[in-house]
Amino acid sequence: MIPTVPRHVLLDVVRRALAEDLGGRGDLSGQATLPDDLEGRFVVRARAEGRLAGARAARLTFSEVDRTLRLDDWLDDGAALEAGTVIGRVMGPVRSIVAAERVALNLLGRLSGIASLTARFVAAVDGTGTAITHTRKTTPGLRALELAAVAAGGGAMHRFGLDDAILIKDNHVAACGGVGAAVRRARAFAGHMTRVAVEVDRLDQLDEALAAGAGSVLLDNFSNEDLRAAVARVGDRGVTLEASGNVSLDTVRAIAGTGIDVISIGALTHSAPNLDVGLDDA
Amino acid sequence: MIPTVPRHVLLDVVRRALAEDLGGRGDLSGQATLPDDLEGRFVVRARAEGRLAGARAARLTFSEVDRTLRLDDWLDDGAALEAGTVIGRVMGPVRSIVAAERVALNLLGRLSGIASLTARFVAAVDGTGTAITHTRKTTPGLRALELAAVAAGGGAMHRFGLDDAILIKDNHVAACGGVGAAVRRARAFAGHMTRVAVEVDRLDQLDEALAAGAGSVLLDNFSNEDLRAAVARVGDRGVTLEASGNVSLDTVRAIAGTGIDVISIGALTHSAPNLDVGLDDA
Amino acid sequence: MIPTVPRHVLLDVVRRALAEDLGGRGDLSGQATLPDDLEGRFVVRARAEGRLAGARAARLTFSEVDRTLRLDDWLDDGAALEAGTVIGRVMGPVRSIVAAERVALNLLGRLSGIASLTARFVAAVDGTGTAITHTRKTTPGLRALELAAVAAGGGAMHRFGLDDAILIKDNHVAACGGVGAAVRRARAFAGHMTRVAVEVDRLDQLDEALAAGAGSVLLDNFSNEDLRAAVARVGDRGVTLEASGNVSLDTVRAIAGTGIDVISIGALTHSAPNLDVGLDDA
Amino acid sequence: MIPTVPRHVLLDVVRRALAEDLGGRGDLSGQATLPDDLEGRFVVRARAEGRLAGARAARLTFSEVDRTLRLDDWLDDGAALEAGTVIGRVMGPVRSIVAAERVALNLLGRLSGIASLTARFVAAVDGTGTAITHTRKTTPGLRALELAAVAAGGGAMHRFGLDDAILIKDNHVAACGGVGAAVRRARAFAGHMTRVAVEVDRLDQLDEALAAGAGSVLLDNFSNEDLRAAVARVGDRGVTLEASGNVSLDTVRAIAGTGIDVISIGALTHSAPNLDVGLDDA
Amino acid sequence: MIPTVPRHVLLDVVRRALAEDLGGRGDLSGQATLPDDLEGRFVVRARAEGRLAGARAARLTFSEVDRTLRLDDWLDDGAALEAGTVIGRVMGPVRSIVAAERVALNLLGRLSGIASLTARFVAAVDGTGTAITHTRKTTPGLRALELAAVAAGGGAMHRFGLDDAILIKDNHVAACGGVGAAVRRARAFAGHMTRVAVEVDRLDQLDEALAAGAGSVLLDNFSNEDLRAAVARVGDRGVTLEASGNVSLDTVRAIAGTGIDVISIGALTHSAPNLDVGLDDA
Amino acid sequence: MIPTVPRHVLLDVVRRALAEDLGGRGDLSGQATLPDDLEGRFVVRARAEGRLAGARAARLTFSEVDRTLRLDDWLDDGAALEAGTVIGRVMGPVRSIVAAERVALNLLGRLSGIASLTARFVAAVDGTGTAITHTRKTTPGLRALELAAVAAGGGAMHRFGLDDAILIKDNHVAACGGVGAAVRRARAFAGHMTRVAVEVDRLDQLDEALAAGAGSVLLDNFSNEDLRAAVARVGDRGVTLEASGNVSLDTVRAIAGTGIDVISIGALTHSAPNLDVGLDDA
Repeated sequence: MIPTVPRHVLLDVVRRALAEDLGGRGDLSGQATLPDDLEGRFVVRARAEGRLAGARAARLTFSEVDRTLRLDDWLDDGAALEAGTVIGRVMGPVRSIVAAERVALNLLGRLSGIASLTARFVAAVDGTGTAITHTRKTTPGLRALELAAVAAGGGAMHRFGLDDAILIKDNHVAACGGVGAAVRRARAFAGHMTRVAVEVDRLDQLDEALAAGAGSVLLDNFSNEDLRAAVARVGDRGVTLEASGNVSLDTVRAIAGTGIDVISIGALTHSAPNLDVGLDDA
Repeated sequence: MIPTVPRHVLLDVVRRALAEDLGGRGDLSGQATLPDDLEGRFVVRARAEGRLAGARAARLTFSEVDRTLRLDDWLDDGAALEAGTVIGRVMGPVRSIVAAERVALNLLGRLSGIASLTARFVAAVDGTGTAITHTRKTTPGLRALELAAVAAGGGAMHRFGLDDAILIKDNHVAACGGVGAAVRRARAFAGHMTRVAVEVDRLDQLDEALAAGAGSVLLDNFSNEDLRAAVARVGDRGVTLEASGNVSLDTVRAIAGTGIDVISIGALTHSAPNLDVGLDDA
Repeated sequence: MIPTVPRHVLLDVVRRALAEDLGGRGDLSGQATLPDDLEGRFVVRARAEGRLAGARAARLTFSEVDRTLRLDDWLDDGAALEAGTVIGRVMGPVRSIVAAERVALNLLGRLSGIASLTARFVAAVDGTGTAITHTRKTTPGLRALELAAVAAGGGAMHRFGLDDAILIKDNHVAACGGVGAAVRRARAFAGHMTRVAVEVDRLDQLDEALAAGAGSVLLDNFSNEDLRAAVARVGDRGVTLEASGNVSLDTVRAIAGTGIDVISIGALTHSAPNLDVGLDDA
Repeated sequence: MIPTVPRHVLLDVVRRALAEDLGGRGDLSGQATLPDDLEGRFVVRARAEGRLAGARAARLTFSEVDRTLRLDDWLDDGAALEAGTVIGRVMGPVRSIVAAERVALNLLGRLSGIASLTARFVAAVDGTGTAITHTRKTTPGLRALELAAVAAGGGAMHRFGLDDAILIKDNHVAACGGVGAAVRRARAFAGHMTRVAVEVDRLDQLDEALAAGAGSVLLDNFSNEDLRAAVARVGDRGVTLEASGNVSLDTVRAIAGTGIDVISIGALTHSAPNLDVGLDDA
Repeated sequence: MIPTVPRHVLLDVVRRALAEDLGGRGDLSGQATLPDDLEGRFVVRARAEGRLAGARAARLTFSEVDRTLRLDDWLDDGAALEAGTVIGRVMGPVRSIVAAERVALNLLGRLSGIASLTARFVAAVDGTGTAITHTRKTTPGLRALELAAVAAGGGAMHRFGLDDAILIKDNHVAACGGVGAAVRRARAFAGHMTRVAVEVDRLDQLDEALAAGAGSVLLDNFSNEDLRAAVARVGDRGVTLEASGNVSLDTVRAIAGTGIDVISIGALTHSAPNLDVGLDDA
Repeated sequence: MIPTVPRHVLLDVVRRALAEDLGGRGDLSGQATLPDDLEGRFVVRARAEGRLAGARAARLTFSEVDRTLRLDDWLDDGAALEAGTVIGRVMGPVRSIVAAERVALNLLGRLSGIASLTARFVAAVDGTGTAITHTRKTTPGLRALELAAVAAGGGAMHRFGLDDAILIKDNHVAACGGVGAAVRRARAFAGHMTRVAVEVDRLDQLDEALAAGAGSVLLDNFSNEDLRAAVARVGDRGVTLEASGNVSLDTVRAIAGTGIDVISIGALTHSAPNLDVGLDDA
């Protein structure tokens, strides 16, 4: 299931992107050369294989530029794309369509790039029962859209930001004098509606974390052997184990094979290449 | 020379990114585990080779979270980085530093990623006299920062958006009935302070463009042979020739070798991988 | 521990409140009658017993109106107040101080009202081990500040809003065909960093909720007898039990006596009377 | 007559409240458990006796979340409510309705709480010819809505903020060297479209105020005997007398009986308990 | 006395103006040609006779662009200017100064233009006891600054906008069935802190207005003879008479000579020519 | 051809202007005296001869206040107006129409004033082949609308702001050590899509500018004789010559007669008198 980004969040992103591109005079090229009353029919089309994300943002871009544009036959986020797949249709004044084109394609390209890369990782661990998830290494200003794109690629939700869940790291542990003390302070601070997770670097810290009641443990840069040991140690206590660090399409299946619950991958959002998407005459 | 992004543009990006990460309650993990009065000294450090961009944005992120943070010894955008290079130092309340950390690193990672990829293309054409430049395929909301990052990598400026220069494309040409007519209409519309460029797909359109007085011609997806022919045809008329389409680190030097003035590359901004940057105890 | 509201959230509230009061011409009364260069010394003083909240917001109000104002000896949120307690001092141009006065006092009065009411509930359950917490029945636009005020009164954190934790209610259960099914769907949707709680109206639903793996159960409008039965049934499974509905200062201790973990009270934020706070010559 | 809050003011309040509650991921509970296409019919219903305010704000909340929601049979602000009165109906996608529910109810509850308390004061002085009015002790960010709620309860308008009328208080008088001097300076400063009122603490200041041409005099914390004396002294000069300080439902009728024109009550906005309003299946 | 525009109103105007001029890349000309570390000293100088307004806005413009700029010896609004008068000094990085220059001068030029025109009207009625005031015919977005500029020229305050005072016009009278009925309805609606004025076109309407208790009457397009008759009719009732319509520097003194209290002039804000102000090397 | 101001730019101007006029309570006069359900039909009518600009902004003003207003038969920007010309019709609730009236008329009056003054300059140079253009001396916050108004009057586009073209002035030349050096540095900095112009004060600087490859030269305060010499010197090199300084309706034709390409006039935007436009019953 793909979370629905609230409409005002989407609108805010779209309006800023349009403001950036249109400036104070709008699309000079279109105004100079396209008759005011020229109508056209176009399709937004994938030019490469992948997974769709950003469809609502793209549609909103067209309608923000011109409410009279007709938007038909749009695929939903999460749809599988081949080179040539029609993502949706846009019809109406050509001046409006070309003024919105670049922003709409930029949104589709980046977000579908993230969904597509996520889908490849998800496919790579298919059948293992391990979930693929994101980190907070997102593009400034686009977190909500990028996390929805991860979901469109089949990825799971992690925490959204610093204020919806607690994840204890090195500095926190050092300040508290140990993993156990840090987890206990965090549980005392967090209400019953907030999860407390802790990142550990060594197996022995895992025991401390479990003893102190962490709901989830992040094993950073563990070898697969150590991951397997961690999985065994946790058993059926209901604590989630998450692995991170040096995860690639080549290594991810072996990591999943350790029995770990979740693998988090920063590259899903910080280094996904753009998916090529274009606008063609229909 | 690297353009200076106006302060309000930078602030706006930084504040949105912080709002996204801090939500309504701020960094729960730090509040739970770090004493209010704990001070620390950290360095921001490159973990890979590349080119720095986003240093002002990162500094601003730290000081937006806490004006009392001390920021010393920061490198300027455009600096060459090795794995281990100290980009800058930050000292003060640890709660504030870890609350700002992720946003600052996200900005540095993305923008330095762009600068680093640009620098590789610039190095690849070294000595040819050809400039490397960007397109409008930028991240929604980050255009000003990303274009400055291209400059930090040694890239040249292209148009910023739809309203500062005219670039005539297929649809415009079709509506006007030809390249020449489109250029003439655009020149009549544009004031004397606005450049008129035209994109052509075939050599014969180049002649029309030149005859109509285009200031610059974009040759899209031309073979190197055709690029060479175009360069010859333009001679010393003072018209800039720009090549685009299917440019990679493998092909760029040969393209530059055709004598073309400028090569524009969408991937600089839409598909640059993140540069790995981290925060370490000092 | 009291969460630290991010600075931009606080500033946004303060600036809107000042804009509302100052309009386009500022404080006409002060401009008409107070010499431009008149300096004064004032204290902000509680006029009734209670608990302090909003001190940072109040200080920020004064400094937003005039950066030259000196603010000394301010108590921290959570401080106990008697009638007459000096909350803080403000010195500088009298025109600036009286222009900021009403907004600063409105913030202190409302937020300290919430902290004071919370503190009375917390005192009423003292020694029972039961926590007092808030709901989402907060003043539109002030949630972050009001929840911090609950914490200043000794209350615990609940979820902040709809997107940081899952709380399954009637309509959700009905759509899924039962408590168990709803909890299972929610757990599948939520990542491992998001808590899933469920609200039940009858004891038998509790079993379903426990079986399906809810992390927390909200018992709405249960009799104390039924609460006791629920506590017994949960035993030491590590599931949090929360009670809500018809909680008053008269009934809260008996409810806590059932062994319930948490009691949530909407009135803390939706019906707390203002704490009387004033500005006096120092 | 109830003033019409400008649409952009209303929208701004509604959007901020929704942003606060929906965050970046929206209503996780509804997304997890409610089918995308589930439609429902609900009524917003009063659960206690009172006076309606906030109906436009609530309707706007539902339509901001989803423009396709149907809103029928809504009562207007100022309507008398019994426990069980249907305030309005909302039909459409259940996901949208429950995502908007809490914000809509929070607005209705607070604003109807203010209207209801005002209506009780207005009823208490029925037949005396004395008006009940508000102060500037309003919730930061909600002044326009709260003052309209006072009007919905039958209250009169006072000044909106510091810049639409002059009200001279202690500090102003002290700076000018007397009530008369302060009023004269204020009248010289104010244009002919701005009222000048003055607050006095003693009967003898009233004479000074009248002599200096104050349009209105606020008698703060006067005994009823002194209020009567003030009324007698003003006679038919066309100067409005306002009383304030220690006004409760027990004392207000006696105060009105002194012949005073207006009684201003801070508690109308700063301490009105919420009116209980809920959403039920229709 | 000149009203003090609240700081946030001023900042908002300055930031929008800078955003408009600096776009996403800032001042390209300065970046291209001025060394980063070049410091300079400049004076802002009047190039024509007039009255100063906008000094705070101009200073804020320079410091918004660069907080390190030194601003010395600035005159206050209301100061008389000759061609050559130094309005203020600015010192620091030349890049920053020239980037802010045009916005600062645009603000000074327009606002001083308004102050200067106002001062001419005020001088023209010198000694008559008649005040000169503005209308709501202001530049969209600049009302607060323009009304302060009128005050800097010696003009009096009128209502700021539609919500701080009532001014009954033709359409209102027609809807109520007469001037008297309209005034009575307005007085019933307005609280005691809001002035009710009425515009009349004929002398006989004046009587109705007076009888109904209007606090002020606007006589639109009356002949001077009729104005004199109106003044006589009002006598010492304490009702303000305002004249408007076809007021010029040639006619204003004769109008004032009728004994009218206030003359309102739209041209003060809608048609004042710019005052020429420039930046010179110091 | 008149550039189309992007919708969000227009909306932003309209909303700020409405916020300024309507405050927190809206139009008190209309609410007090006009029945809620009173409908009316009005025309917006020119009261003087001129050229229309601002029609879209005015229509948007009416529909922002009330989406149910009908707007028929509106002329387009650029239309010639006589005293009495109907610009457009507005029908619907009278309360809404009068609440929007002043803002709509202020926009029409100022922008049509600019278009009308521009049209007079354009007419004055009719047949000479010289274009009339604007400067950056625009009203803070209204640049996009004012430049579109210049176009509505037949004027040509100049640069929009500091970041879309380079114009080298005195300070830049001084810092570079000469006109030629400054132009060369600017061309090296500017990409191929950005024009480089240079302002010169003397004929000999023109040669330097031409030699260095300036695309356009601004001749500031040249005598007509010197302008003619400059035109001769440039010949057919394809460099645009622009004249500025002391241009009036009396002198402009003679200046155009020198053969100069463009004349830029600050007064078009900084000192155009308002065009009188009113709202009448239809």
